[in-house]
Amino acid sequence: MPIPPHSIEIIGRVSSPFTGKFGIPRQPGLLAVESRIRMLPPFDQPMMFEGLEGFSHVWVSFLFHEVMEQGWRGRVRPPRLGGNERMGVFATRSPFRPNHLGLSAVRLLKIDTSAGVCLTIQGADLLDGTPIVDIKPYVPFADAFPDASSGFVQDVPGEVLQVSFTEQARSQLTAHAEPERFAELIRKVLALDPRPAYQAQDEGGREYGLSLERHNIRWQVCGGQVQVLGIEKERPE
Amino acid sequence: MPIPPHSIEIIGRVSSPFTGKFGIPRQPGLLAVESRIRMLPPFDQPMMFEGLEGFSHVWVSFLFHEVMEQGWRGRVRPPRLGGNERMGVFATRSPFRPNHLGLSAVRLLKIDTSAGVCLTIQGADLLDGTPIVDIKPYVPFADAFPDASSGFVQDVPGEVLQVSFTEQARSQLTAHAEPERFAELIRKVLALDPRPAYQAQDEGGREYGLSLERHNIRWQVCGGQVQVLGIEKERPE
Repeated sequence: MPIPPHSIEIIGRVSSPFTGKFGIPRQPGLLAVESRIRMLPPFDQPMMFEGLEGFSHVWVSFLFHEVMEQGWRGRVRPPRLGGNERMGVFATRSPFRPNHLGLSAVRLLKIDTSAGVCLTIQGADLLDGTPIVDIKPYVPFADAFPDASSGFVQDVPGEVLQVSFTEQARSQLTAHAEPERFAELIRKVLALDPRPAYQAQDEGGREYGLSLERHNIRWQVCGGQVQVLGIEKERPE
Repeated sequence: MPIPPHSIEIIGRVSSPFTGKFGIPRQPGLLAVESRIRMLPPFDQPMMFEGLEGFSHVWVSFLFHEVMEQGWRGRVRPPRLGGNERMGVFATRSPFRPNHLGLSAVRLLKIDTSAGVCLTIQGADLLDGTPIVDIKPYVPFADAFPDASSGFVQDVPGEVLQVSFTEQARSQLTAHAEPERFAELIRKVLALDPRPAYQAQDEGGREYGLSLERHNIRWQVCGGQVQVLGIEKERPE
């Protein structure tokens, strides 16, 4: 019996510091950044989450909404392979995949039911505004295979670059409500080296921009160091 | 910006010994049973799986197609809690959930590209005919949290019942192409005690039926033992 295309509904929406795609950690868990999932009606009734407070982690299923219009590809160039080698799309977590479904295991910090349901999570690699299509509890005996072999994805990406701020960037930081926390977020994101792999060798002082908490962060890499050049609040759309 | 309901396509289809819902292990990995995923065009090109052979496990995203018409519920009765206590649907893996998305980590045994693409997997808790909507590599550093706490799901369900076959069942087994393997599959499935939790106390000799490899298995529980009463081939629909 053939099954027609299945229509899925958006059940929640992410608020995260990642207000632009560039710079989002390439797997969840690399950065201990907090995000929130605001459930949408009719999926925002507290009783639907009864019992979830006993779980330390949850699975978040979402849509890679920012690239949906760009479709999918049979082979992709994983950043991890330097951006030159191609892999089959189903051998990767690329967003350019059929159905554009994403999946992240994240730490569950808080379930706020004071007005609808809002989950606070940690470790998510999710763009601000990401549509959520499912939330499931993480069950170690079914989900945790620490010894699984993982092909070309061997090592945990870590902090590889030192980060410093120019005088100008430092003074612009003071306009932020929480300058120290924000500086640390910027530091952590840039230390992971968000440059496309094929540009990571490039030390030519190219200037990059990256959006965090609706601020445009301008930076460059010089001698293995990131220099933050400027931090400017984005204009509302 | 509101996002309209998203239409997802079926990219593959499962062939499994579980030809009926009743008796399917309640989480993946409990039974080392082999299943296959046959990819559907245009998602069946071998190049789309290049690189996946290096991974020991994959994530299978699927639809709970058998219960889709029954909709979803805000609270469900997990079998693990005896079927009496209710939990919020998002605190469970219940199929009666919004969007009816399922998720299983399974062992990847083989990628056959001799005609299209067919994956052999082990440990799946998937009904025969299940529609697949995504395949992703399992990445331990992002996916494996062996120490995650998991609320009311503490212990790994194991084999709890002894299984024996009546004379009649034994003689009917000989009609199967692989009687020994099939007997062992039946034994493993029944040893997990597939009865609904609220009937697990029931020792009144109630007869149950269960479909495996398109055979109807008739059985009862008596004195903590399963007796297999009969094994009959189902008529083709």
